Amino acid sequence: MLRSLSRGGTVARKKDDINQSNATDIAGVHLTDAQRLDWLRLIRSENVGPRTFRTLINHCGGASAALEALPDLARRGGATKPARICPVDQAERELRGSQRLGISLIALGEPDYPARLRMIDDAPPLLGARGKIAVLTTNMIAVVGSRNASAAGAKFAERIAHELGSAGFTIVSGLARGIDAAAHRTSLGSGTVAVLAGGHDRIYPAEHVPLLESILPHGAAVSEMPLGWEPRARDFPRRNRLISGLSLGVVVVEAARRSGSLITARLALEQGREVFAVPGSPLDPRADGANSLLKQGATLVTEAEDVLSVLRPILGQRPEQPAEEPDFGPPSLTEPGTSERARIVALLGPTPVGIDDLVRLSQSPPSIVRTVLLELEIAGRLERHGGGQVSLL
Amino acid sequence: MLRSLSRGGTVARKKDDINQSNATDIAGVHLTDAQRLDWLRLIRSENVGPRTFRTLINHCGGASAALEALPDLARRGGATKPARICPVDQAERELRGSQRLGISLIALGEPDYPARLRMIDDAPPLLGARGKIAVLTTNMIAVVGSRNASAAGAKFAERIAHELGSAGFTIVSGLARGIDAAAHRTSLGSGTVAVLAGGHDRIYPAEHVPLLESILPHGAAVSEMPLGWEPRARDFPRRNRLISGLSLGVVVVEAARRSGSLITARLALEQGREVFAVPGSPLDPRADGANSLLKQGATLVTEAEDVLSVLRPILGQRPEQPAEEPDFGPPSLTEPGTSERARIVALLGPTPVGIDDLVRLSQSPPSIVRTVLLELEIAGRLERHGGGQVSLL
Repeated sequence: MLRSLSRGGTVARKKDDINQSNATDIAGVHLTDAQRLDWLRLIRSENVGPRTFRTLINHCGGASAALEALPDLARRGGATKPARICPVDQAERELRGSQRLGISLIALGEPDYPARLRMIDDAPPLLGARGKIAVLTTNMIAVVGSRNASAAGAKFAERIAHELGSAGFTIVSGLARGIDAAAHRTSLGSGTVAVLAGGHDRIYPAEHVPLLESILPHGAAVSEMPLGWEPRARDFPRRNRLISGLSLGVVVVEAARRSGSLITARLALEQGREVFAVPGSPLDPRADGANSLLKQGATLVTEAEDVLSVLRPILGQRPEQPAEEPDFGPPSLTEPGTSERARIVALLGPTPVGIDDLVRLSQSPPSIVRTVLLELEIAGRLERHGGGQVSLL
Repeated sequence: MLRSLSRGGTVARKKDDINQSNATDIAGVHLTDAQRLDWLRLIRSENVGPRTFRTLINHCGGASAALEALPDLARRGGATKPARICPVDQAERELRGSQRLGISLIALGEPDYPARLRMIDDAPPLLGARGKIAVLTTNMIAVVGSRNASAAGAKFAERIAHELGSAGFTIVSGLARGIDAAAHRTSLGSGTVAVLAGGHDRIYPAEHVPLLESILPHGAAVSEMPLGWEPRARDFPRRNRLISGLSLGVVVVEAARRSGSLITARLALEQGREVFAVPGSPLDPRADGANSLLKQGATLVTEAEDVLSVLRPILGQRPEQPAEEPDFGPPSLTEPGTSERARIVALLGPTPVGIDDLVRLSQSPPSIVRTVLLELEIAGRLERHGGGQVSLL
């Protein structure tokens, strides 16, 4: 599904090409200013997330055409009110504001876009990045953990971040208090990337603004959210997929039983990244999460070499494609018939079902099923789950 | 090699029987008083360890015959002075002393002999046991760790020993300060076994005599050493094979990098027993050993269920035979010729070589090679290593 992005956002592939698409094809692309504006409008429009963005680009032939198609798709999908499309002036304001703050909006497929992040199936179409952009194309490893870290946990985070930094890795973390901050602080010189849950002008926690500024000379801050976006609780798990997505692996230093770091570890697994965990006493609740990861097969880390010995063999490899939903090719440009659409929608309900089951049970062509799903998505009626499963909202 | 012990210490098997020997055959044996005295004399004689004891019994047809054969075997093995044979009165003194202290000398193959210990290839021919002897035939699990345990380590040892005790396991440990003592103390009621490195009348550390006495009503103390034996440093690793040998598995709670607990864990692996380790902070040197075991594949333990879920499926199984040295049958009753013996001895040196290589290179029958090795052993000139390797001293 990525190859279409290699022609400046236009679909120009035959069906036979689908299985030949791969990561290297999309390097070296540059969007025009007009294209970047269209991309920004599309991703900032209602009901368009990173996955829908890709489907739309493929379906419509580009961002501009997708923007035009949105109202019709929403109507066909049964939207009760028209989907809100991001107006031109709003997108222009964001572009100007970003420029003023020194933020580059790097498009998926452009050379500065982080290579491994590109491979996750919900990679942000536009990544806002501040600081030393070149750091985004280095080898990265995430070091994450609890906000209320113990002194020992923070000390260990410092040690491992320093050692991994010295070994040439850029340290990725979430700018949180505790482990994250410790990891950033000891890798300021070697390079570190802070992944934000809100906009670049809404740093959380606010007390870490000075830390963020000290990251920028040799590192970067990245966000997929618009300027002015205050991070809400649900934005953190979403952000965590970028922490793992940027990285070859994730080191979990201290994590309680239900913590964001465990979400990052799970996402890392789903993205085919390595998961490392630092053991702790069973009597220390802050070690529960990491110990539980170890029981599930994470690599035990007591020193940087434990991480390096796993990552060294991977360094030379081309990033692996994550398991995506079954690829039936782009949605059909032909509008599905009313009865066909109704039949497919009738098969859906609140319980997630596989798209392949939908195709089999509806006896409709895969491209038609995909189009109906896109319509429902734009209408805000569809939820996508992992493993190619969808449900009706 | 065990089957011969099933006939009260006499060899009465044909060569064809060798591969049919198994553990169940040797249950239900009882030595006569005279046989027990001979067994005790033989195992207390110079250059006779548990492995040589078995070979001698097989070679000579019983302990009494073996005692008679010792001087000749030593001479043929090139002993510079005659091997010291344990005199009758010394053995009688030990038997009487044991009786006075309430110690049973349980022979390998007798019903009270611990079933899993019987399966290790250097199982003590006679196990001196005090206390509630019935506890030796229960399912046992070892809980071991460092002497200078942290409060958290000791607390965790108490917790896991208590939980495993409640789940029906007898807790085995080494009566040391720290983790061992904590494990014994919380399982006094459910049953615990202290394995001693010295004689029953030489408790180490002496301050644990009251602890040992409180173990005996529902548990036991066991030792393979003679009465009056002061434990030396090298007796502890030797003792550790009994801790693991008695047990289905070993839980290592806190262990520094080069500690006795790691030796116990290694021996457990060699004996085909499960190894469990409790994680700790990489910044705590007392966790180094356990973390290192986890890196090598030990099962991570934060609660009793982690142990129980591994052991439950094993409980019903017959104990597994450990990898022994290649079985070429008993040594030959025919004395090897002088030149043949010289040829075999010439192949040996300070570097360990495999017995199978010796057979191949000497072109002598395996039974002859075995006899020459026995002679050298009794003469105090042979060292046996793991994996069927031997070297000249």
